[in-house]
Amino acid sequence: MAAVKRKDWSRYGKWFRRILIDAGILDYRYPIKGCGVWLPYGFKIRRNVFQILRNLLDSTGHDETLFPLMIPETALAKESSHVGSFEEECYWVTHGGTDLLKIKYALRPTSETAIAPMLKLWVRSHADLPLKLYQIVNIFRYETKATRPILRMREVSTFKEAHTSHATFEDAEEQVKEAIIVYKDFFDAMDVPYRISKRPEWDKFPGALYSVAFDMICPDGRTLQVGTVHNLGQNFSKAFDITYETEKGEQEHIWQTCYGISGRAVAAVLTVHGDDYGVVLPPKIAPIQAVIIPIPYKNKAEQINKACKDIEIMLKKANVQVKLDLRADMRPGSKFYYWDLRGVPIRIEIGPKDIEQNEATIVRRDTLEKQTCKISGLVKTIQELMRTMMKDLRLRAWKWMDERVHRVDNLEDAKKLIARKEGIVEVLWCGNVKCGQKLEEVIGARVLGVPMDIEEKIDGNCVICGKTAADIIRVAIAY
Amino acid sequence: MAAVKRKDWSRYGKWFRRILIDAGILDYRYPIKGCGVWLPYGFKIRRNVFQILRNLLDSTGHDETLFPLMIPETALAKESSHVGSFEEECYWVTHGGTDLLKIKYALRPTSETAIAPMLKLWVRSHADLPLKLYQIVNIFRYETKATRPILRMREVSTFKEAHTSHATFEDAEEQVKEAIIVYKDFFDAMDVPYRISKRPEWDKFPGALYSVAFDMICPDGRTLQVGTVHNLGQNFSKAFDITYETEKGEQEHIWQTCYGISGRAVAAVLTVHGDDYGVVLPPKIAPIQAVIIPIPYKNKAEQINKACKDIEIMLKKANVQVKLDLRADMRPGSKFYYWDLRGVPIRIEIGPKDIEQNEATIVRRDTLEKQTCKISGLVKTIQELMRTMMKDLRLRAWKWMDERVHRVDNLEDAKKLIARKEGIVEVLWCGNVKCGQKLEEVIGARVLGVPMDIEEKIDGNCVICGKTAADIIRVAIAY
Repeated sequence: MAAVKRKDWSRYGKWFRRILIDAGILDYRYPIKGCGVWLPYGFKIRRNVFQILRNLLDSTGHDETLFPLMIPETALAKESSHVGSFEEECYWVTHGGTDLLKIKYALRPTSETAIAPMLKLWVRSHADLPLKLYQIVNIFRYETKATRPILRMREVSTFKEAHTSHATFEDAEEQVKEAIIVYKDFFDAMDVPYRISKRPEWDKFPGALYSVAFDMICPDGRTLQVGTVHNLGQNFSKAFDITYETEKGEQEHIWQTCYGISGRAVAAVLTVHGDDYGVVLPPKIAPIQAVIIPIPYKNKAEQINKACKDIEIMLKKANVQVKLDLRADMRPGSKFYYWDLRGVPIRIEIGPKDIEQNEATIVRRDTLEKQTCKISGLVKTIQELMRTMMKDLRLRAWKWMDERVHRVDNLEDAKKLIARKEGIVEVLWCGNVKCGQKLEEVIGARVLGVPMDIEEKIDGNCVICGKTAADIIRVAIAY
Repeated sequence: MAAVKRKDWSRYGKWFRRILIDAGILDYRYPIKGCGVWLPYGFKIRRNVFQILRNLLDSTGHDETLFPLMIPETALAKESSHVGSFEEECYWVTHGGTDLLKIKYALRPTSETAIAPMLKLWVRSHADLPLKLYQIVNIFRYETKATRPILRMREVSTFKEAHTSHATFEDAEEQVKEAIIVYKDFFDAMDVPYRISKRPEWDKFPGALYSVAFDMICPDGRTLQVGTVHNLGQNFSKAFDITYETEKGEQEHIWQTCYGISGRAVAAVLTVHGDDYGVVLPPKIAPIQAVIIPIPYKNKAEQINKACKDIEIMLKKANVQVKLDLRADMRPGSKFYYWDLRGVPIRIEIGPKDIEQNEATIVRRDTLEKQTCKISGLVKTIQELMRTMMKDLRLRAWKWMDERVHRVDNLEDAKKLIARKEGIVEVLWCGNVKCGQKLEEVIGARVLGVPMDIEEKIDGNCVICGKTAADIIRVAIAY
């Protein structure tokens, strides 16, 4: 079981752009920079990916809602004066028709300030808590950095944001833990490996007590933040004066958390499993799990097509998402290329020899290995192959990532690994902000934060100041 | 089988506002006028309603996509100079951060002008056609008319818009027919009755050859447009110069249609079936189809709760969406009120007597009729009751509407019916625009258009000019 080679992954950015358009995922040629169009095939992948997330949130007591897109400047300003601001990063609506609006509206960069005035109406007493809401919406950032399709958009057309309210700090802490488990389950379902780190003080979400982030490693060695979880404490509730009556009859400000996952989750799954031939989709999120391609042969065309149609019916009955490709104007080789590019997990070829033997030829997308199997046993074989493939994808992806997280005990090695684009480097750190920021400077990378996914006794010294280390800290070149 | 009375439906507007907030559908107190928040329960209804539509579109070869929200002024202006304009009705984004944008962006009022530049890239030859796309998104209108929750919003947070491209006029005509069938199936699935009319020339969609609309009648006698289908001809493709190569190798402009359904579909289902006690949901779209309420009785509480839990498991296994209401701080009567307001189709009460007899008491929401049934036969009874209820809701709703569509042969009767808020009036018309517009003036109502859902030989004279009639024409006071 060997994965198909990735020849030159330093050109990951180029590969990613190419497959987005060639595989029908996202068209980035929209006339506004930083805005893209989700194409039919890409949208189906997006649907499946976010359906997994939706199911996980619904089954853990989150309620889906939908808040307005526009946020009055006055609400945003309230946040700004208390907990920092997105104001400079917002798109602003100033006119309705030809009328100048009295108050200008921001297109939501995230929805804390849209939700706050409603929470003020909804939350009265401890009996109203906890309140766990989420929505899947578009958000906007007036990016000054270079935009990249899906990875850094001005319109993030898919953003799942959860917002929870609690009676106590402890409840909010528990919620952070639940959110992390939900996100783990989500990425595990797609076989996307990650590291979980508590972001450093200087890189947390504005208004958060602390931020936890999920990072993956791209083939070019850079990390990509794919999910974040924030404990907001009472920062927003104090800014908006959102209180509840405790059991003792006293008014207290609510405690809040928020956590988000964007369309980057789709980018993650494409990136982690893809290869030189294009996309490779885990069967669980593949819009088409198996494609049937007839290999026509003189006189036998009719017989072959009939066998293909029978197989299609058979697989449909077994709840396999199947597609029969009967395009007459395309050779089998072109069809192989077409579906390989789109990452369909299993290809079923039916040719004259197969017919004679009552067999089908099966090719799995990840390894491109071929096998034949009796048509009578096809359903079982395919279901088993999909399970095997998911297991293999997971093992391979995690192995690949684990090999790119390096523990070193000196700055020189750290610098070398970062320069060679080898992924994440873990070093020891005293916990001092100045040392952390100096570390970023010295090795030319970004601090991802302190690991939340390993427990380990710290024994050694800070790579910057040499004092006794308090923590492990992760650094990487990040997208 | 009698429906629960609607006491004073002239106050429908007030009733509708009340149930939106009281039943947890939509909160309209957001700090921007014309923008509302979909609440958890309302969002679940919305999900079910739009899932029906999604399934219908998917199964008729439509592909879901997602286009950017912002449309450059230049693209909108192109439409404006050729086919009329939404420009005066748009919200405009003029700033990114503190930068003045070189070109201002409109928040989509509808997406023809967002899609057009992409179609220009995608459509090359006849082999690319037909192309049937749709998306479910928010759209924006800077309404100068009074806004109303769901019915007339500035942010229409739920809008399903389909956009199709074709090689010939005939293909576009066929597509209009398919769209009408899809919409009929959609409203039929929710038991919402309608009339289908071809809108008059002076009320068609800007840029359309013609527009077809679905109207329902609200309890106050006013009609509500709940769906529209437009044949755009080549108006947009000429404005944006979108051509394809025909089989003969010639360049021709594509033919287009578009059709939309908004969150009004949710308003429709609430309005059509609701009564003085609140919402009544057809089982097909009810987030909770049956609620189990224990009627506690001294010493027997434990036994009763156990029976309730057993019933919950039994119904879940049978795929009934069930909710067991065990709230300890609420009396049964208050729970009845609570769930009746939210329109849960079936209520199951378990009290001490029921337990003794191994029975359950079942109440159907639409008629509030009670019956008892053995617990062993409960699943079957409930499934049957849901089917009966759907049939009854449909019959009742259609009967109600049919009684409010009046055919009259003179202006006086038409005026009287409109003044008495009796719904839709059908009269004979010569087909002349001037007569149509005069009709609106004289009877103080709006022309809905010519029926698309009845075939009938026209025999008589225009109620305005007295000349030979060419068509039936519908008039009503419209929302």
